Amino acid sequence: MISFDTIQEAHDRVRPYIHRTAVLTNQTINDRAGAELFFKCENFQKIGAFKARGGLNAILQVVQNEEGNAITTHSSGNHAQAVAFAARQVGLPAYIVMPRTAPKVKKDAVRGYGAEIIECEPTLEARENGVREVIERTGAVLVHPFDDDRVIAGQATAAKELIEDAGTDVPFDIIMAPVGGGGLLSGTALTTHYLSPKTRVIAGEPEGAADAVLSFQSGRVEKAPFIKTIADGLMTTLSERTLAIIQAHVSDIMTVSDDEIAAAMRLVWERMKIIIEPSSAVPLAAVLKHKEQFSGQKIGIIITGGNVDLGKLPF
Amino acid sequence: MISFDTIQEAHDRVRPYIHRTAVLTNQTINDRAGAELFFKCENFQKIGAFKARGGLNAILQVVQNEEGNAITTHSSGNHAQAVAFAARQVGLPAYIVMPRTAPKVKKDAVRGYGAEIIECEPTLEARENGVREVIERTGAVLVHPFDDDRVIAGQATAAKELIEDAGTDVPFDIIMAPVGGGGLLSGTALTTHYLSPKTRVIAGEPEGAADAVLSFQSGRVEKAPFIKTIADGLMTTLSERTLAIIQAHVSDIMTVSDDEIAAAMRLVWERMKIIIEPSSAVPLAAVLKHKEQFSGQKIGIIITGGNVDLGKLPF
Repeated sequence: MISFDTIQEAHDRVRPYIHRTAVLTNQTINDRAGAELFFKCENFQKIGAFKARGGLNAILQVVQNEEGNAITTHSSGNHAQAVAFAARQVGLPAYIVMPRTAPKVKKDAVRGYGAEIIECEPTLEARENGVREVIERTGAVLVHPFDDDRVIAGQATAAKELIEDAGTDVPFDIIMAPVGGGGLLSGTALTTHYLSPKTRVIAGEPEGAADAVLSFQSGRVEKAPFIKTIADGLMTTLSERTLAIIQAHVSDIMTVSDDEIAAAMRLVWERMKIIIEPSSAVPLAAVLKHKEQFSGQKIGIIITGGNVDLGKLPF
Repeated sequence: MISFDTIQEAHDRVRPYIHRTAVLTNQTINDRAGAELFFKCENFQKIGAFKARGGLNAILQVVQNEEGNAITTHSSGNHAQAVAFAARQVGLPAYIVMPRTAPKVKKDAVRGYGAEIIECEPTLEARENGVREVIERTGAVLVHPFDDDRVIAGQATAAKELIEDAGTDVPFDIIMAPVGGGGLLSGTALTTHYLSPKTRVIAGEPEGAADAVLSFQSGRVEKAPFIKTIADGLMTTLSERTLAIIQAHVSDIMTVSDDEIAAAMRLVWERMKIIIEPSSAVPLAAVLKHKEQFSGQKIGIIITGGNVDLGKLPF
């Protein structure tokens, strides 16, 4: 089990490398929601997403414990950049297995941090095989996107800052995060459990990647009935590790449609003047969909990232 | 002449109604520019633009001096919203003359602040006639978008905050703003002259609305050779009043093309994750175009606003 000390140590470890991102509020969105919302802006984080936290916490320990001389992972999204960025900070080579179908802009970003990309077919099997080959060839250490206590403890530091910066005078009634593989959500739930135990943690999930809500109900890792959503950061499935933490410390998981996600995303762009990716809009979409359940509450929302293809907006 | 005391009084007057907006920096953009840039984010201001400052400073004085019981102006852009917003703050009716061709989203925003819209043909003559009729009918007081000392003193408070927040330990070498009618630029130049007299003020202007650069050279109010630019907030012409201040206190005006504006705007969206309108990108476009002149300098840039039609992006 990840203790509060582990999260505190993770925070001390990553702090020199990350931004303490702003917590923003917006009167119009509060009026629209009928609640008091505090947005933790990890779109302003290094690499444009919270994933820098988990990647750094894992890789700094790989160096400290002399576990290996290279890092590898497979990802088509923000975790690829996070690992490339963190490996560069410590001077280790990084080998990122990416599906050949990943957007050029994401590959360019990973290369921009000096990492080597190994292209593979766009299947989970091909990605895992790719990582296995890298490990055999280079002895690299795998940093999994979410099924890793060090990654979870790193992601947990975002909620820690949110609570410290806006939830101490009057505690949050609710803290929200989106759920994909569950690294951020389980870290958020643990931090909240330790620092603000009366605060409920509620997740938002796309209808088009609705595995976590099923797993939460059944207690087993379930697959999503279908995968089709604009929230491209949330297509992964929970692991046993993240599900266990989520079952222990999360109150509810709410699903929202792509139209609801796009509308919430557009509302944030138009009124807050900040760029957030579709995954980041999922919790706000849930608040606006179920206003009666959130009415009058003080709610912290983790804005997960701002890496959007500006040529393909969903509105 | 607008004294420093006048700007200080304007700041005290508007402070309860506005945000003290953030000053942001970005390592990637600094590296790209070869300079140290500080962005004063008036896209986060009330109504999404710095114009809230000037509108409030004028209208609060109309109330204080009992000059009239209603406010009017003509504008198709951010000033319309600023006047509507400020009038609502003080409980006065506002009559905004807008060209019938103005985007529905802008008319909706003005109505959202409770103002009445009077539609007119899209010519300056029709707009001025519209305002005259409103004044005859209602006795409303005109708040001009820039040719008004109270408006200029209000806009001057943005640079005041920028200097106070980021230019005191090490003064700025340069402060930059875009120029349209010159309200923001003349206010910025006055504040800089009083608070940081060694700092040079440099303006950016679109090639497709290049009146200010001509007027700056000739010393007379000149018209732009042609008007065609994506920087829709900068199409207006200087007045005698703004030109006089600009000639006294501005060092240079640099023109940039629409392609250069769009590229700078996209760079800010992608790397800073904030939404800025094309006009806001004009100074950065000038820095990136003339790197040799800005190399190694500490530069403050006023980001004027973030009101963008998301359906019509210039990239």
